[in-house]
Amino acid sequence: MVVVMQRGASKPLIEAVIGQLGELGFDVHRSSGVNQTVLGAIGVKPDFDIRQVQVMEGVAKVYRVTEPYKFASRAWRQNNTQFEVNGHVIGGEAITVIAGPNMVESESQLDQVASYISELGGAFLRADIDRPRSSPYSFSGHGISSLKLLRSVAEKYNLAVVSKANSATMVEAMFDHVDVFHVSAHHMQNFELLKVIGEAKKPVILKRGLSATIEEWLMSAEYILKEGNTEVVLCEGGIRTFEKYTRNSLDLSSVPVVKERSHLPIIVDPSHATGFRNKVTPMARAAIAAGADGVMIETHPDPLKAISEGAQALFFEEYVELLKQVQNIASSIGR
Amino acid sequence: MVVVMQRGASKPLIEAVIGQLGELGFDVHRSSGVNQTVLGAIGVKPDFDIRQVQVMEGVAKVYRVTEPYKFASRAWRQNNTQFEVNGHVIGGEAITVIAGPNMVESESQLDQVASYISELGGAFLRADIDRPRSSPYSFSGHGISSLKLLRSVAEKYNLAVVSKANSATMVEAMFDHVDVFHVSAHHMQNFELLKVIGEAKKPVILKRGLSATIEEWLMSAEYILKEGNTEVVLCEGGIRTFEKYTRNSLDLSSVPVVKERSHLPIIVDPSHATGFRNKVTPMARAAIAAGADGVMIETHPDPLKAISEGAQALFFEEYVELLKQVQNIASSIGR
Amino acid sequence: MVVVMQRGASKPLIEAVIGQLGELGFDVHRSSGVNQTVLGAIGVKPDFDIRQVQVMEGVAKVYRVTEPYKFASRAWRQNNTQFEVNGHVIGGEAITVIAGPNMVESESQLDQVASYISELGGAFLRADIDRPRSSPYSFSGHGISSLKLLRSVAEKYNLAVVSKANSATMVEAMFDHVDVFHVSAHHMQNFELLKVIGEAKKPVILKRGLSATIEEWLMSAEYILKEGNTEVVLCEGGIRTFEKYTRNSLDLSSVPVVKERSHLPIIVDPSHATGFRNKVTPMARAAIAAGADGVMIETHPDPLKAISEGAQALFFEEYVELLKQVQNIASSIGR
Amino acid sequence: MVVVMQRGASKPLIEAVIGQLGELGFDVHRSSGVNQTVLGAIGVKPDFDIRQVQVMEGVAKVYRVTEPYKFASRAWRQNNTQFEVNGHVIGGEAITVIAGPNMVESESQLDQVASYISELGGAFLRADIDRPRSSPYSFSGHGISSLKLLRSVAEKYNLAVVSKANSATMVEAMFDHVDVFHVSAHHMQNFELLKVIGEAKKPVILKRGLSATIEEWLMSAEYILKEGNTEVVLCEGGIRTFEKYTRNSLDLSSVPVVKERSHLPIIVDPSHATGFRNKVTPMARAAIAAGADGVMIETHPDPLKAISEGAQALFFEEYVELLKQVQNIASSIGR
Repeated sequence: MVVVMQRGASKPLIEAVIGQLGELGFDVHRSSGVNQTVLGAIGVKPDFDIRQVQVMEGVAKVYRVTEPYKFASRAWRQNNTQFEVNGHVIGGEAITVIAGPNMVESESQLDQVASYISELGGAFLRADIDRPRSSPYSFSGHGISSLKLLRSVAEKYNLAVVSKANSATMVEAMFDHVDVFHVSAHHMQNFELLKVIGEAKKPVILKRGLSATIEEWLMSAEYILKEGNTEVVLCEGGIRTFEKYTRNSLDLSSVPVVKERSHLPIIVDPSHATGFRNKVTPMARAAIAAGADGVMIETHPDPLKAISEGAQALFFEEYVELLKQVQNIASSIGR
Repeated sequence: MVVVMQRGASKPLIEAVIGQLGELGFDVHRSSGVNQTVLGAIGVKPDFDIRQVQVMEGVAKVYRVTEPYKFASRAWRQNNTQFEVNGHVIGGEAITVIAGPNMVESESQLDQVASYISELGGAFLRADIDRPRSSPYSFSGHGISSLKLLRSVAEKYNLAVVSKANSATMVEAMFDHVDVFHVSAHHMQNFELLKVIGEAKKPVILKRGLSATIEEWLMSAEYILKEGNTEVVLCEGGIRTFEKYTRNSLDLSSVPVVKERSHLPIIVDPSHATGFRNKVTPMARAAIAAGADGVMIETHPDPLKAISEGAQALFFEEYVELLKQVQNIASSIGR
Repeated sequence: MVVVMQRGASKPLIEAVIGQLGELGFDVHRSSGVNQTVLGAIGVKPDFDIRQVQVMEGVAKVYRVTEPYKFASRAWRQNNTQFEVNGHVIGGEAITVIAGPNMVESESQLDQVASYISELGGAFLRADIDRPRSSPYSFSGHGISSLKLLRSVAEKYNLAVVSKANSATMVEAMFDHVDVFHVSAHHMQNFELLKVIGEAKKPVILKRGLSATIEEWLMSAEYILKEGNTEVVLCEGGIRTFEKYTRNSLDLSSVPVVKERSHLPIIVDPSHATGFRNKVTPMARAAIAAGADGVMIETHPDPLKAISEGAQALFFEEYVELLKQVQNIASSIGR
Repeated sequence: MVVVMQRGASKPLIEAVIGQLGELGFDVHRSSGVNQTVLGAIGVKPDFDIRQVQVMEGVAKVYRVTEPYKFASRAWRQNNTQFEVNGHVIGGEAITVIAGPNMVESESQLDQVASYISELGGAFLRADIDRPRSSPYSFSGHGISSLKLLRSVAEKYNLAVVSKANSATMVEAMFDHVDVFHVSAHHMQNFELLKVIGEAKKPVILKRGLSATIEEWLMSAEYILKEGNTEVVLCEGGIRTFEKYTRNSLDLSSVPVVKERSHLPIIVDPSHATGFRNKVTPMARAAIAAGADGVMIETHPDPLKAISEGAQALFFEEYVELLKQVQNIASSIGR
């Protein structure tokens, strides 16, 4: 922690601050210029609230010097994290495509999607059974029986199951039926949920919160990693901005930023971020071009009849085209 | 729902859209101008996703006409909601002051605060036992034994207990020990939690999410109201903006907006919103001047030693001064 | 400037950075902990771009230690800036109310407003002659003849003229006809305009940009002050947030923040910020309660017929009521 | 315009609103459901402020039905706008790369950059002579003599000159020396400047404002188009969000959105948006993958010594690599 004293702060004031920092357990280095004194306080724990120093008399500014996360940082682990799910390596050279409908609706719906995903070489089937909704009147899924249905269809086509857990209790109930947990943007800071997922030690896709900074997102990953679960995939799914022509704004700069600061793989969800199917393919291309390890795509056998998020689901032919285009981009950057 | 067709959309296109709207169960009125046709679709359910219409060929724009919330709206209930807790009316003519430390730390800490709150005529003691934190390394409370301690001290001074529930399971565990549940900004859209609080039928303070619109906030209230719990207090606690000199930005315009659109009482939390104790009193004054029904204030017997959020906690003398100033403002607007 | 080296940065790397800082003209202090080295660089000029250091190999973080503004800071001038316009002191004990219609429309319109403002003890008449508009098709004022009309009506009622200058050339044209220039939110960072206003040495109201931080706003004030014009009033007029029920979000926390960091007076514009006349009075009360030195209010003899911004203009009777309520609040905090 | 009446609004109230709409010159269609009446008002001019209706008694909501821009819309012009500058077609099949240093510094600096841009097949040289700065103490360019220098170096290498105009007066002074005007994000809503640029009838790059929506950006383009200047290129340069690891957030979704709503070409500036040179190449790749018509890149012969924005300028070898990668992406999508 770096403590900048106010210009012309008196000696006694400076010494008082040094004393208080000492009481708080810090080892203090003092560096005095002509007008201004800067104190370096060593030994700051990640949970220290620097405002405690900021409100001390004579203090102008306080900076935390170390990143608040550790296990999620590139400094902790130099090499990219890679892991295998259902024979497919996430975070490796090849890109990952996770696809499926927004919600489980029926066996026929799942069977149609799983069949074409599998035929096109996919390894994952995503569908949710319950949603974090902003309206109490919206469809909220069929629960655990949906999950079993999802499981059985996925097995038929040898696909891994990706599905959202929205609470700690759901994690337990879902454990035997999913291969990859998905934490939604709404729940990025549901710390009880993150802890339980960390203990569950199953791969997890952690979506960025709608107004979360990348630092906060990495902190949420830290919650999971700290419990010993190292198979975490970050997923950029758009942030809330003033723009209204898209549902949210896909922040693709997060891809190179995450690659620099963390060893964790990162994928991108252009379906949810843009909210409209005709924006999905260009943004999926852009995601891979920016260096993402994969994309998560919503597709539905009959988007016009989809029970939820139909507007952002790709028709079958659009999905085929997306795969082709995204693979072209991947090849052109040597993946 | 109002569906605006593209300029010059052909007759068959318009009829196709009318047909699809009919299939979706809407009663459609058509109003054709020289250049543009506007369709009114009647019978839209609150959970209908208007993007389903927006992606239809020939459609330019779609607007949802009705508010997505019902029980929370002023249209549903003309008169202000008022209810009594511990002999004190919330939402009535007199303003409500809810005060206490951020977290339960010790019996002595609680006793000192409760003693002066009570002496100054207060009716509530707020303190949390667990926090929604952005860092896994931060202090996370002593759990349920803390709550029992809080309860016993509150009873000694005849104060009502206000404390945060961060998950559905916490609600059950806390039920017998609190008078008012508090849902934090982080959990404003934790729908499992909202549902359980709705069923619990105890008064609840629902804080606005950091990047939530007022409409989304009222939708979260709707979740609670819909389960039959009508004792909901909204709490403006600041929104995330680009401003960095304060922790968050207190959006006091939400006070007259909520008063216009909803019958629910609204209080303001200037402590958490500003993050610094020297901003708390002016913003508490402003909140009451804007028409808020009360304020929630953090105060601690020894803020410099507080285990969390010390920078925003008022010293005893500052709290006395705040009460006086806030009461002056209340009087000057006839409360 | 504080330069934090990466954990475990090698000695040669650290020395290379010290060397580069030396070349850039800094006096460098080195403070080495067990894991991490922190460098203090003294002699940073306000215009130094710290990213130049941030991109050096081995550097983890860089902080600018000094505020980027000087003349606008409380450190530069301990006492509140006060100045007199038309016999009325701005920034003194009494609050300032600046009122008038959005735009000059006609002599009769101005005469009616000026007459009641004057009768109620007001000292200022505000009206614009041209607007920074987001649509090329919007009404754009009648130009300099409007200004002369405004001037003559104001003189009749002994009111000072407040009007917006939207470009450097307008400043010159307006100079003889206004008492106070008004720089709109749109132009807060129009540096050519700020420079000319600085040279003009007439009082100026500088509105906060819609997405400006307080620091950026004070930097814009610095532009004016630096040219020798010390009569600057800051005006909080709302910031852009995700909230849609109000036009913008009034950030009243800026009032105590500005009072802490700067010596400049600050007023608040609730008319433009909220965009609806029924929100103006509560927010004007809140502004004064928060400690603002005044308010700027739009009022029109016939808001329903106003050529622009009629929805936010107060009817005469509403304006009378606002004055009364705002004065009550002022009295209750000893102003 | 669609006017939604409040549920249960009385007949006289509805008729009063219809009357007022009539007075305002609208042709009104009435569509009454069981609970709610919706009025369609035809003949709304682009500059009509819909809040005038929103504040009428009995009105629940008002929507503007038509886009506020006309000449900028795809409806106005179905085919993509293309135009030639210096023998290079902007908005055509081939992508456009505009490169150069942030500011004109010296003949040697310009000569080095121009030489390698030209050698690599480039057609444009960008450099500014004055900057919209947030600090009054920052470098502000050498003015018109810099421009002449830029012009002569560009001519030597047969490159077109791209340079920023920050005020209406600058447009006139610069006219003979530039091929393409560049309007910065700061000035996107400097309407005097836009008007003059519109009259100047020279190609212009219009950057998106830092907190502007796409609609506002297209409205600014409308200002230029309306004066008869049709050679407008939109440039996405990042928007302000809560993210702090990058300078701004590049909103690449704006590319497919602009392509859908407008006929104007769109390029992307990853240098200014990310603020750090190691993020520029991935984001340039992503921009082209998303469908942008080109990129604007800062490169400098010696970024470490650059007088401004050195942290985001590419070294020569990085620029060569960027060109290669960006061209690969372009090929992979058939451009």
